[in-house]
Amino acid sequence: MPLFTMTRRVQFSETDMAGIVHFANFYRWMEETEHEYLRSIGLKIMSTLPDGRVIGWPRVSCSCSYTAPARYDDLIDCRLDVERVGVRSVTYQIEFWRAGTKLAAGRMKTACCLCHPDGTLTSIDLTEEFRSKIHESAPPNSSSS
Amino acid sequence: MPLFTMTRRVQFSETDMAGIVHFANFYRWMEETEHEYLRSIGLKIMSTLPDGRVIGWPRVSCSCSYTAPARYDDLIDCRLDVERVGVRSVTYQIEFWRAGTKLAAGRMKTACCLCHPDGTLTSIDLTEEFRSKIHESAPPNSSSS
Amino acid sequence: MPLFTMTRRVQFSETDMAGIVHFANFYRWMEETEHEYLRSIGLKIMSTLPDGRVIGWPRVSCSCSYTAPARYDDLIDCRLDVERVGVRSVTYQIEFWRAGTKLAAGRMKTACCLCHPDGTLTSIDLTEEFRSKIHESAPPNSSSS
Amino acid sequence: MPLFTMTRRVQFSETDMAGIVHFANFYRWMEETEHEYLRSIGLKIMSTLPDGRVIGWPRVSCSCSYTAPARYDDLIDCRLDVERVGVRSVTYQIEFWRAGTKLAAGRMKTACCLCHPDGTLTSIDLTEEFRSKIHESAPPNSSSS
Repeated sequence: MPLFTMTRRVQFSETDMAGIVHFANFYRWMEETEHEYLRSIGLKIMSTLPDGRVIGWPRVSCSCSYTAPARYDDLIDCRLDVERVGVRSVTYQIEFWRAGTKLAAGRMKTACCLCHPDGTLTSIDLTEEFRSKIHESAPPNSSSS
Repeated sequence: MPLFTMTRRVQFSETDMAGIVHFANFYRWMEETEHEYLRSIGLKIMSTLPDGRVIGWPRVSCSCSYTAPARYDDLIDCRLDVERVGVRSVTYQIEFWRAGTKLAAGRMKTACCLCHPDGTLTSIDLTEEFRSKIHESAPPNSSSS
Repeated sequence: MPLFTMTRRVQFSETDMAGIVHFANFYRWMEETEHEYLRSIGLKIMSTLPDGRVIGWPRVSCSCSYTAPARYDDLIDCRLDVERVGVRSVTYQIEFWRAGTKLAAGRMKTACCLCHPDGTLTSIDLTEEFRSKIHESAPPNSSSS
Repeated sequence: MPLFTMTRRVQFSETDMAGIVHFANFYRWMEETEHEYLRSIGLKIMSTLPDGRVIGWPRVSCSCSYTAPARYDDLIDCRLDVERVGVRSVTYQIEFWRAGTKLAAGRMKTACCLCHPDGTLTSIDLTEEFRSKIHESAPPNSSSS
């Protein structure tokens, strides 16, 4: 059982002239799944500290392997697991399924950062709120992956 | 020296509310670089055989690591190398630079396939035209990677 | 009361560096609303006739006026009305609301076409199935617009 | 003669399963043409005043009529004219041509605004720099439209 699942309809604008979903959309879907997971445990991907500083989660790396094409109108199950909660980063595994068929499997590592007004980023330790809520949702020793 | 370089301006629509380029755009940029490289050696990503069958290049896997953010209006050098020409696939390495700063590095593996009218795909050996033109452009023993 | 309403969450990738939803996304949202409406009355945007010919609905024209910005995480109500069912086209009006605030209002005219394998399009009369199902859902003399 | 022309290659990711460019891309292309025009006369779409306030150009309205499909690999001429310079807005007309074939024609009205840190917008008069540089480039009585 994955930690979190959401279902998503493939949109027409996500297809390409080969008649299948364009591969780059899966990275947006990974992010949408991450955000919906965080939303489900009361977290937001961008937040403002009491002192006005902004915390965001830029991606460190991301990958995806494709095993079967997704098509227009498909209902895709997006299954997320937390692979690792690091000191300054969180790594997710996300799989995409249409009924019993696995379409693709991805991994995404994101870093907790201060987002400065000039667009620069400074990596920081996870806030206590993020760490505790993710750990509560995905206890370290009960990974389903 | 990379095998092939193209330069691309960051568009406003490619940024997100964090003020930097949204990470999913880099996968489209990898594909645009691949296609521009193929175009430069006289190849097209989708082609029709004399018997009417269509050949395309779906992605097998793709990954990207991010080291510095790209911003609106930046001119990005997209540097492509051919990592491997397999029997049925080609793997590329693509790096993204702004002047002397490396922003991201990706790898993309694509498979030569017959694209059937019903949307299914059948993996086939590289056509002789693809194999010879890529080899001519990127001799196996002179990899710059 | 609009004829059809769906609700949609604003995704992070739909924002731009101004901190609001990039305007071009509203055109995709119009199409998603149209397709969800058609789905709700048993129609598909691309269909294949018994003789193998493919029917699609390319856009003739589209417009949108913006009155207030949409932001990340907003829940947007997409309200669709059928403005006109012509001999060869259908025109929709779609409004975007966040709670009591109207964000944008668009109009989209689409034409019923044969999509030929070579990518050309031929305008045709609406199929009887489209005409009857849309009329049944939106009787000509009861327009809410 | 249009005031400003740029040429743009259609990318694979811009096509959809109907084998043609997805209609929503034309709105991004309008914006890319506007920005390239502004760049050509020394203006930037987002700028910071000496007092730190940020000026941006949200869209007021946008429309596009489609006359012929664009396809993968096409080279598209994007032709821009300034239709009107208002007190607080600029309206552009942009046409898309492939060789001698007009593919689409659009209009885009944008408003000069202060972009506040909390994401709200306040409409203001065009800055003197914008007004003078646009007028210099497109004298009011010499419109080509």
